[in-house]
Amino acid sequence: MKPIPATSTAAVFHEVGAPLKLEQFPIPELKGSEVLARIVCATICGSDLHSYYGRRHSPMPSVLGHEMVAEIQAAGPAGARDFNGRPLKIGDRITWSMVWSCGQCFYCSRGLRPKCEKLMKFGHEEIVPGRALIGGMAEHCHLPEGTAIFQVPDNVPDAVASPANCATSTVAAVFRYAGPVAGQIVVIHGAGMLGQTACAMAAVGGACGLAEHAGAEKALQFGATEAIDSARPEKEILARVKELSAGRGGDIGMELAGYPESIELGIGLLRMGGRFVMAGATFPSRPVQILGEQLVRRMIQIIGVYNYSPEDLESALTFLSKAVDKYPFDELVGKSFPLSAVNEAVDYAETQRPPRVALLP
Amino acid sequence: MKPIPATSTAAVFHEVGAPLKLEQFPIPELKGSEVLARIVCATICGSDLHSYYGRRHSPMPSVLGHEMVAEIQAAGPAGARDFNGRPLKIGDRITWSMVWSCGQCFYCSRGLRPKCEKLMKFGHEEIVPGRALIGGMAEHCHLPEGTAIFQVPDNVPDAVASPANCATSTVAAVFRYAGPVAGQIVVIHGAGMLGQTACAMAAVGGACGLAEHAGAEKALQFGATEAIDSARPEKEILARVKELSAGRGGDIGMELAGYPESIELGIGLLRMGGRFVMAGATFPSRPVQILGEQLVRRMIQIIGVYNYSPEDLESALTFLSKAVDKYPFDELVGKSFPLSAVNEAVDYAETQRPPRVALLP
Repeated sequence: MKPIPATSTAAVFHEVGAPLKLEQFPIPELKGSEVLARIVCATICGSDLHSYYGRRHSPMPSVLGHEMVAEIQAAGPAGARDFNGRPLKIGDRITWSMVWSCGQCFYCSRGLRPKCEKLMKFGHEEIVPGRALIGGMAEHCHLPEGTAIFQVPDNVPDAVASPANCATSTVAAVFRYAGPVAGQIVVIHGAGMLGQTACAMAAVGGACGLAEHAGAEKALQFGATEAIDSARPEKEILARVKELSAGRGGDIGMELAGYPESIELGIGLLRMGGRFVMAGATFPSRPVQILGEQLVRRMIQIIGVYNYSPEDLESALTFLSKAVDKYPFDELVGKSFPLSAVNEAVDYAETQRPPRVALLP
Repeated sequence: MKPIPATSTAAVFHEVGAPLKLEQFPIPELKGSEVLARIVCATICGSDLHSYYGRRHSPMPSVLGHEMVAEIQAAGPAGARDFNGRPLKIGDRITWSMVWSCGQCFYCSRGLRPKCEKLMKFGHEEIVPGRALIGGMAEHCHLPEGTAIFQVPDNVPDAVASPANCATSTVAAVFRYAGPVAGQIVVIHGAGMLGQTACAMAAVGGACGLAEHAGAEKALQFGATEAIDSARPEKEILARVKELSAGRGGDIGMELAGYPESIELGIGLLRMGGRFVMAGATFPSRPVQILGEQLVRRMIQIIGVYNYSPEDLESALTFLSKAVDKYPFDELVGKSFPLSAVNEAVDYAETQRPPRVALLP
C-alpha cells in the first residue's frame, strides 16, 4: 500500500468552459468512520460535461466527477464499514453511492434517498475549507461518515466498475421500480450507456429486451433480442412489438432517452396493465401529451426514477460481476487519460462522445 | 322465502333513448353453482345513463344495471359459494362483482381481472336465448358459475350496499393501488359519489383527505378535512396543500373527476415521490400535458385504475359496514322507484342528477 501523502492533487472547476486547474489540497484528518479513498479510476459522465460547459448549473469552485473506483488508503478511528455494516480494510477496492443521504429524514425513511433533505452529491459540491476532496477528478476522495460504500467484485475491471455508481445504478433503480422481469417483454427506449446496460440487465434477468432508438442495433451486443430503429413509422414499431408479445404489447417500458417522442411512443407500446419506468427525461423539453382515458382504461403505470438508492449500487455491482464476461462493457470506456491531462480528457469526451472516458490518477 | 316463480320481469333496452320495455323471461334451470338472485334493490349508475342516452356504445337488446343487492332464491346442484369459497344459503343477502372474470387467463393471473380475456359485465351484455337475466333492472339476476359473490354486512342498508359493486369498489381499487394511507395527505379530485366515498375511505383509513373540486364542500360531510374549490387560482391551491403538508405537497393524489385540468393540477400538488392514482378519466378529452422532467426529477408515480378486482368489492363492503353510521351514505341515493316505473326513474336520474336513483323490484 502506498504511504499516505500530505497533500492530494485535484482538478478544480472554477469557471464554465475554462481549463480545470490542478491544485493541491491537504489530506484531511479522518474522524469517526471517515475514509480516505485513493482513486484508481474515474470516468467522465455526461452530467460532468453538462456542468463544465454550463448546460446545467453547478456549484463552483468544485471537483467534478462522481463515477470512480478507489482503494481504501486510510480510515478514521472507528474503522471503515460498507453499507451493510461489514468491516472494510486498507487496500479494499471500493466504490460508493454518488449521492450521500442521511437515511433518517422524511424522504430517506420513505425509500426516497435520492431526495434526502441533507443530500450531498460527490462531484457536485462547492469546495469549502476542510472539504475539498469530494469529487472524482482527483487523486483522493474524502468519504464522510455514512457514505454508502461497497466493495467492487474482483472480476470487474476498474473501467467497468467506475460507471457503476451512476449509469449502472440508475438502471438498477429502474429495474427495481419495474418489478420482476423474468419472462417479460421489456421495451427499452435509448441505446446509449443506460440503454445498453438495461438490455444486458434484462437479458441477465431472463427478460426479452427490445431496444428502441436511433442506432439501437448496438444494443444487440448487450443482449437485446431485437433492435428497433426509432426512424421506423410508429405503426410499424407497434406492429412489431405486438408480434413479439402475442398481440398484447410490452409488459414493461423503460425510458432512458428522455425525449417526449420516446415517452409518447413507449406508453403506446405497452400492454394493458403495463408499467413505464422513466429515468431519461432529466433535461427540459416540450410537455408530453398523454390521453388520460388511455392511462385509465389500459391501467398503465408510469414511474419517474431519479438517481438511485444504495441498494441499487449493490445490485449494479452484482449484475456487473455476472455480466462482465458476457457483454462488451469494457468497450463503453473509450479512452483513458492521466489526471494531468484532465482538460484533454474533457475535450475528448465532449467532441468524440464515447459513452465514457477514463481518468487514471 | 318467496316461491320461485316461472318467469321474471326485466326492463329491456332495445334502442337508444326509447322507453325500456318490461318483458317476461323464463327462470333458467340452474347448473353447477349458478345462483338465482332475487333483486331487492338496484341503483342506476351514470354509465347506465350513458348507455341509455347513447353517449357510449352498449350491446342491445340488454338489461341495463350492474349495481344491486339481492337475496339468494335458488342455487344449482353444487350449491352457492362466496368468492372465498364459503357456502351461502338460500335467503342470504348478497352482491357480486359487476365484472365476471375467469381468474385464469393472462390478465387475471397477473392481478388484472378487469382485463380478463373472457370478461362479462352484468348490465352490459346482449340478451341471447337462455341468458337474459344478467342486469340489475329486473326482478332476478342469473349468476353464472365463477361470479364473485359476497354477503352484504347486516348493518349496511340495501340502498347503501347497492352501489358498493361499482362506485365503492372502484374507490377501493384506487386505495389498493395507492398503498397504505394512514397518516398520509390524500388529495382527492372530484366530489361526486366517487370523490365523497374516497374522502370517507381516507378518513376511515387514518388519512387526511383534501377534496378538490367544484362543490367540494359537500365532501366535508364525508370526512374530508378540507374542501378546496377548484375555481381558486392554481397557485393558491398549491400554497394551501403545501401549508397542510409541511411544505412538501400531497403524499397521494386520487383523480376521480376525469378532467385533464384536474390531472395536470393534481400531479403538480404532489410531493416528491408522490403517487397519483387515476380512475376518473373514462371519457374522451384533450390530451393531458405533462413535463417528463417533472415526473423523473420529482419521482412521481401515475397509476391508471379501471374497474376493480373481486377483493376490492370485499374491501368496499367492509368499509361500508364501518362507515355507514358515520357518514350520510344513505343520502347519496336520492329517490326510489318501483321497477314498473323504470322509465320515470331513468328520466329522473338524468334530469335531477342525484348521485344515485334506486329501483325496488
